[in-house]
Amino acid sequence: MTFKLLTRYVPILQWGRTYDRQAFSGDLLAAVIVTIMLIPQSLAYALLAGLPPEAGLYASIAPIILYAIFGTSRALAVGPVAVVSLMTAAAIGNVAEQGSMGYMVAALTLAGLSGVMLLGLGLLRLGFLANFLSHPVIAGFITASGILIAASQIKHVLGVGADGGTLPELLFSLAVHLGETNPITLAIGVGAVAFLFWVRKGLKPLLLSLGLAPRLAEMLTKAGPVAAVMVSTALVWALGLDSAGVKIVGAVPQGLPPLTLPSFSPDLIRLLLLPALLISIIGFVESISVAQTLAAKKRQRIDPDQELIGLGAANIAASFTGGYPVTGGFARSVVNFDAGAETAAAGAFTAIGLAIAALALTPLIYYLPVATLSATIIVAVLSLVDFSILRRSWSYSKPDFMAVAATILFTLGMGVEVGVSAGVVLSVGLHLFRTSRPHIAEVGLVPGTQHFRNINRHKVLTDPGLLTIRIDESLYFANARFLEDYIYDRVVSGCPIRDVVLMCSAINEIDLSALESLEAINHRLLEMGITLHLSEVKGPVMDGLKKTHFLDALSGEVFLSQYDAWVRLTRQEARAEAV
Amino acid sequence: MTFKLLTRYVPILQWGRTYDRQAFSGDLLAAVIVTIMLIPQSLAYALLAGLPPEAGLYASIAPIILYAIFGTSRALAVGPVAVVSLMTAAAIGNVAEQGSMGYMVAALTLAGLSGVMLLGLGLLRLGFLANFLSHPVIAGFITASGILIAASQIKHVLGVGADGGTLPELLFSLAVHLGETNPITLAIGVGAVAFLFWVRKGLKPLLLSLGLAPRLAEMLTKAGPVAAVMVSTALVWALGLDSAGVKIVGAVPQGLPPLTLPSFSPDLIRLLLLPALLISIIGFVESISVAQTLAAKKRQRIDPDQELIGLGAANIAASFTGGYPVTGGFARSVVNFDAGAETAAAGAFTAIGLAIAALALTPLIYYLPVATLSATIIVAVLSLVDFSILRRSWSYSKPDFMAVAATILFTLGMGVEVGVSAGVVLSVGLHLFRTSRPHIAEVGLVPGTQHFRNINRHKVLTDPGLLTIRIDESLYFANARFLEDYIYDRVVSGCPIRDVVLMCSAINEIDLSALESLEAINHRLLEMGITLHLSEVKGPVMDGLKKTHFLDALSGEVFLSQYDAWVRLTRQEARAEAV
Repeated sequence: MTFKLLTRYVPILQWGRTYDRQAFSGDLLAAVIVTIMLIPQSLAYALLAGLPPEAGLYASIAPIILYAIFGTSRALAVGPVAVVSLMTAAAIGNVAEQGSMGYMVAALTLAGLSGVMLLGLGLLRLGFLANFLSHPVIAGFITASGILIAASQIKHVLGVGADGGTLPELLFSLAVHLGETNPITLAIGVGAVAFLFWVRKGLKPLLLSLGLAPRLAEMLTKAGPVAAVMVSTALVWALGLDSAGVKIVGAVPQGLPPLTLPSFSPDLIRLLLLPALLISIIGFVESISVAQTLAAKKRQRIDPDQELIGLGAANIAASFTGGYPVTGGFARSVVNFDAGAETAAAGAFTAIGLAIAALALTPLIYYLPVATLSATIIVAVLSLVDFSILRRSWSYSKPDFMAVAATILFTLGMGVEVGVSAGVVLSVGLHLFRTSRPHIAEVGLVPGTQHFRNINRHKVLTDPGLLTIRIDESLYFANARFLEDYIYDRVVSGCPIRDVVLMCSAINEIDLSALESLEAINHRLLEMGITLHLSEVKGPVMDGLKKTHFLDALSGEVFLSQYDAWVRLTRQEARAEAV
Repeated sequence: MTFKLLTRYVPILQWGRTYDRQAFSGDLLAAVIVTIMLIPQSLAYALLAGLPPEAGLYASIAPIILYAIFGTSRALAVGPVAVVSLMTAAAIGNVAEQGSMGYMVAALTLAGLSGVMLLGLGLLRLGFLANFLSHPVIAGFITASGILIAASQIKHVLGVGADGGTLPELLFSLAVHLGETNPITLAIGVGAVAFLFWVRKGLKPLLLSLGLAPRLAEMLTKAGPVAAVMVSTALVWALGLDSAGVKIVGAVPQGLPPLTLPSFSPDLIRLLLLPALLISIIGFVESISVAQTLAAKKRQRIDPDQELIGLGAANIAASFTGGYPVTGGFARSVVNFDAGAETAAAGAFTAIGLAIAALALTPLIYYLPVATLSATIIVAVLSLVDFSILRRSWSYSKPDFMAVAATILFTLGMGVEVGVSAGVVLSVGLHLFRTSRPHIAEVGLVPGTQHFRNINRHKVLTDPGLLTIRIDESLYFANARFLEDYIYDRVVSGCPIRDVVLMCSAINEIDLSALESLEAINHRLLEMGITLHLSEVKGPVMDGLKKTHFLDALSGEVFLSQYDAWVRLTRQEARAEAV
């Protein structure tokens, strides 16, 4: 029993017991491939977050190991990702100067806060909170973030200084500094972008036509960034381009991740609370989407609450080992999965690979031009940009379209934090708005049947003395008054109505506000000499009503079916017509 | 056509044309009675708002006339009310010192802002926003506000200085100053409270037993506060109690409401935006509840959006005539209605009565002790305090109980603005939480019928190869992933399932997120060799799905009824058993 509980919270105890040689060889191969892919990616994302390059490596070592222990996905690869890196830059850019000691401490603190929040949400089993990010809002946010990220990297390709957290700011700043463009940097940057795009689009078909196995061709394609890094580094070193103004990565400390401490300053924590929450939720949503996609392919199971715990532990680890906020990345996880990772041990082996890189390989990237790293970022994030969500949401659901359009506009125009908040608030608001004005149909009997349909859509029988209303929504506070208004309006302006029947087949719940509205409706109709009835009330709803005095006070009856109500309440002549 | 549009926005044009002598006499009598009741009430509520007494009179004159022109209720009486006065004090207490010129300007600005918001909401037809205040939250807020208001008035009954916007602050401050109690003030205050309680409870039966007509007895009871005001004023004047430390109202300017201007300072407006919104919504909810109750008694109709326009105009009038935020009051409206008001002209006559009072009667209240005004407030608001909502919500719905308990605790402990915000956020959050984890039932066939019921509650027939799931909620972003998790969980851990049927009879809507989840479910089940079907999809939902490629991609079929699905998908032997 205790062990079962323990394995729930520490999944490694489950798969670790059956770990065998076959899994080991799969995991090891995957780790080698992911490590090669992650070295340039980690450096690049650290740059995007405004941090020194080694922070990207550090953020990929300890967090991976912690996730391997506590996470439930077998293939998820945890580390820096593009969107979270951008959000990190936006959050800590507000509280500290980039390059300062305070900036790095703020990054650690942000990771720590985010870790504690994720852990807390997981332990409280509040993973469902992430559901309030609707799919269209996520799609719009990712697309807009991709554009923002690409725009933020153009300065490195041009070799100029430019700044801003929104698209207009970035474009304005780039326009101002355009004259300072360094031509050699531009050549390296554009060359790297062109090369990487070609690798994505053209290399795999070429390799396949040369007779390589598809899987090998796929793997070689993923090594494109490494090739770009190696070639451009060699070029800068051989031609001494750094003295011609090409910005290089420079000296990166050699060694394992350091032991660091986040800040416990209440002021700093207060400033970072909201960004940390947004980063946690966005990171969690990205991670869980990837994890579920991969798990489903092997009919494995992801526990969202345990995922929160795993990501929380990973972020806390990042904050104590010189990293910054991390999450499960899409690209790296897919590569890990495709390369044959069987268990989370593949992550641990990747961590070892990266630790070796941090220990031994950093002198090799001294001459790596920053423009090359920016090129890898630009090519990676532009693949995230996909405006088709606008078209799809427009054709299917206008409220979804409004939410996604607002998310994109606010993200581009006012930054990532405002953008994602606006998307959530608007989509929740529009949902509430729709349910606050539910579809209400006046129904009548379809001749020759026991079915009741909308009088406006079908030829049905009605009785002027009987008003039957079907409400296509659960009744709760937001639509309780709407129902009252509807009924009062209908009986005031209407014909000589004697009986009102509420057909409750689509009502899944009646909350206290709605109950009080029903009581008020019953009371006022009674004052007008009209009797109120209910029909087709669901079991759980009826159980609730039975706990109250409503059924005693109800002037009419509760009919099992609407047809029963019709038979009892219509005049003889109307019934005769119906048969 | 133009005239019809005009009468919609200016309802006076409708009833004004048929105004006759009978309506006039009813309106006039009601106006006299309401005026007598309003004089002490207006002074007292101004005190509660921290404003000079005449502000209460001014706030009852121009706003009433504007409401009479634009409002749709025939009996609503607009002016200062207790809860809004308290909220006004809380809002402007944060931005200016009580008694300063800035305080009065802030009150005018708050009224102006609130007026513009109400008007805007009305013109945009956004009256439904008020629906997000659930009944329990309103009940809890009114109860907690009543306690706060009564506590805030104790200092005047004791004759001490004490301050605070929350119950702990008020009680602590009172405890500190208790030693400074002025005994004569205390005697007047306690005497007035006792007298007014007796008037409420004991006077009417006494008058009835003396043979007075019930309606007259009722009216005389409402004049209780006027009697308390007259007697205590006479006492203070005759005995010179003001020199013994009894605080009196003092000099009140004699004259019609002055022409005033709200502030247009952006800083002040920014600070008052949120309070103005809360005051607008709370005021609107109070007003519309009263208006609808009274209108229903005469089978009249209230237009919520036009009510917003009427209240908006009233508040703008208040901001230009020395008033502060106003709304339709419960007590005064009921008295107006009971006294026979036929049209909104009664309000206009009341305004004339109050204008005469402001012109001529203010010297008479020079010696009016503040303790008497506080006594009228205490007795009035304690009738609002009703904790039964806690019991009712506990027994009917725990989420409603949580929302009401939070509203009461936060209002008492952290003030009115935090309280009402917490109530709204919590009730919306809990509603979303509930719909994000909808009731999902696995159903089977009730033997001998075509009905399908929950396999956990009923003896039903099932087929190990067929999983049928009924979702009792519309599918939208907040529960889309829940459904995915549920289905993946069920098919992974389950028996040899070949077909999954989603029974959609309780689904009123499928948004884009849910559609994408259904696509993902369809895709993943297909990968597992399982076919996905739908049954009993509602017409509007089906219309939406037809606009997409989902139905083409769906691995299975859409069945008109669940029984059709059963017949088609179960094995022969299972069907034989069923028949």
